[in-house]
Amino acid sequence: MSKDFLTLSDVGEDALLARLLGLVPSAPPPIGPGDDCAVLDLSPALPQVLLLKTDAIACGVHFLPTSPAREVGRKAAGRVISDIAAMGGMPTQFLVTIALAPETRLEWVEQLYLGIRDQLIPCGAALAGGETLSLPAGAPAVISVAGLGLADRAAVVTRGGACVGDGIWVTGRLGGSLAGKHLQFTPRWREAQWLIEHLKPRAMMDLSDGLGKDLPRLAAASKVGYRLDMDHIPCTPGSTVDQAISDGEDYELLLVLPKRSDADKAELLAAWSAQFPELELSCIGEITPIGTGDELHGGWEHFTKPARG
Amino acid sequence: MSKDFLTLSDVGEDALLARLLGLVPSAPPPIGPGDDCAVLDLSPALPQVLLLKTDAIACGVHFLPTSPAREVGRKAAGRVISDIAAMGGMPTQFLVTIALAPETRLEWVEQLYLGIRDQLIPCGAALAGGETLSLPAGAPAVISVAGLGLADRAAVVTRGGACVGDGIWVTGRLGGSLAGKHLQFTPRWREAQWLIEHLKPRAMMDLSDGLGKDLPRLAAASKVGYRLDMDHIPCTPGSTVDQAISDGEDYELLLVLPKRSDADKAELLAAWSAQFPELELSCIGEITPIGTGDELHGGWEHFTKPARG
Repeated sequence: MSKDFLTLSDVGEDALLARLLGLVPSAPPPIGPGDDCAVLDLSPALPQVLLLKTDAIACGVHFLPTSPAREVGRKAAGRVISDIAAMGGMPTQFLVTIALAPETRLEWVEQLYLGIRDQLIPCGAALAGGETLSLPAGAPAVISVAGLGLADRAAVVTRGGACVGDGIWVTGRLGGSLAGKHLQFTPRWREAQWLIEHLKPRAMMDLSDGLGKDLPRLAAASKVGYRLDMDHIPCTPGSTVDQAISDGEDYELLLVLPKRSDADKAELLAAWSAQFPELELSCIGEITPIGTGDELHGGWEHFTKPARG
Repeated sequence: MSKDFLTLSDVGEDALLARLLGLVPSAPPPIGPGDDCAVLDLSPALPQVLLLKTDAIACGVHFLPTSPAREVGRKAAGRVISDIAAMGGMPTQFLVTIALAPETRLEWVEQLYLGIRDQLIPCGAALAGGETLSLPAGAPAVISVAGLGLADRAAVVTRGGACVGDGIWVTGRLGGSLAGKHLQFTPRWREAQWLIEHLKPRAMMDLSDGLGKDLPRLAAASKVGYRLDMDHIPCTPGSTVDQAISDGEDYELLLVLPKRSDADKAELLAAWSAQFPELELSCIGEITPIGTGDELHGGWEHFTKPARG
């Protein structure tokens, strides 16, 4: 028997958000909902714009009851830093809301906050507010983090600037997040700042749901297609190309740079390696006209996939 | 047998937050964690400062599975508007994170967003971003709302400005939130703007956890005591003074005004009534030196009280 109503498991996250955002007045340009962060241009008197991002993780979905609390805190804050970095900003203020069952151990919560501290201190950000919320006994913990960042007006990079012929690049290696990387990643704010200063990416985003979902989002925002060199996708040791595309939670940067000759690429990679000797930067494909090129599938789909931990 | 660890139900919300906030670098002055909102002064070139607030509500705690979704949405957004208003600001941008079980009906979520719209449109605010998060099946819904507001630098009102001899005032009537008011309140941003323009409160906050918890917080922030005229506490019809002090979720304004003669009070109340004919404004006591006056107890204590709905 077919049911006469839709549930969230019947619709994907993107379709759901598009439907919901259509119901409520959205922030005016420059950039409202849909990119990694919202951008708020308060005044031409300021050289910087504000970046706003909110995100949440839940027990049983993004971490397990047995996950170390300090790593959970690092993940909660690191995801927001990753989004702010991918727009060209540096995080400045954080608001943290933790919703927990009353039987939660105090030590667990303190370790969680220490994990948040681990992320805030290196990038010079601070906590501007915290809220605690009591859930019914037995309910899974939810940690919601809102972050405010600042970016030079000229440094803001969106998902929407890719042009036909541009190269598609990624930092690091993809796949294998379930083996532990999803709790132990380093948000790429140093790398994002360097890339913007030296290479001026035309488009950039962080890889949170996997290349298979995130590259199509970037292409849609830029109104272009894409073609991947599957042999060049940098896979985490032990991961297949399929996993590199679909696992999600890489928290690496996906960026688009103007087309370069092989000699220019070699020079670029030498400069990168001098700055970040332990992290790869790989050209994995190129931007094509809309309606052409590859069509990726896979990636993390909220509301339809099992939990990770 | 005594257990060898503490859980959240062993500590109150204020003690927990104080402990947690001590672990992480806090935002620099003007005002960091601890007031209704954090205040961020971006540049002396701007006439306004930023206000930041995050808040969350959960099913089984702040609403029930049977609560109308539109009212739940109004509550989630209204609580944040109430905090921004109580600091002297107007809300401008919102970020909404909803964590829901996959069996949640799409219509419920759409009604929730319509409730958020009901609050944003009158005060001219917009949605700057939304996130959806899939919880394990059966988990209670959590709705987290982060709000950004703007306030004229000179209009910001904190909890910390009350002086000995000042009068303690409240808007509306207190108590009885459980009978439905907690889902149907109107955040007092119009009233707060008028009060700041015409009466310049020395201290102000919104009553979310009940007078019995919130007045002691204001007094502590101002380093003063307080004495209440119990006969003058405006009770919701059907509520006792005890309930007016303890129920919480009034979302009225608690404010402190310089001492006034009876004639001045009458004039003030006439001006108020002309502007807000349907809402009371009541003088309920006065500020005393620290360590003197009354000592209120009661009010909503997170992690130790049963759910409301």
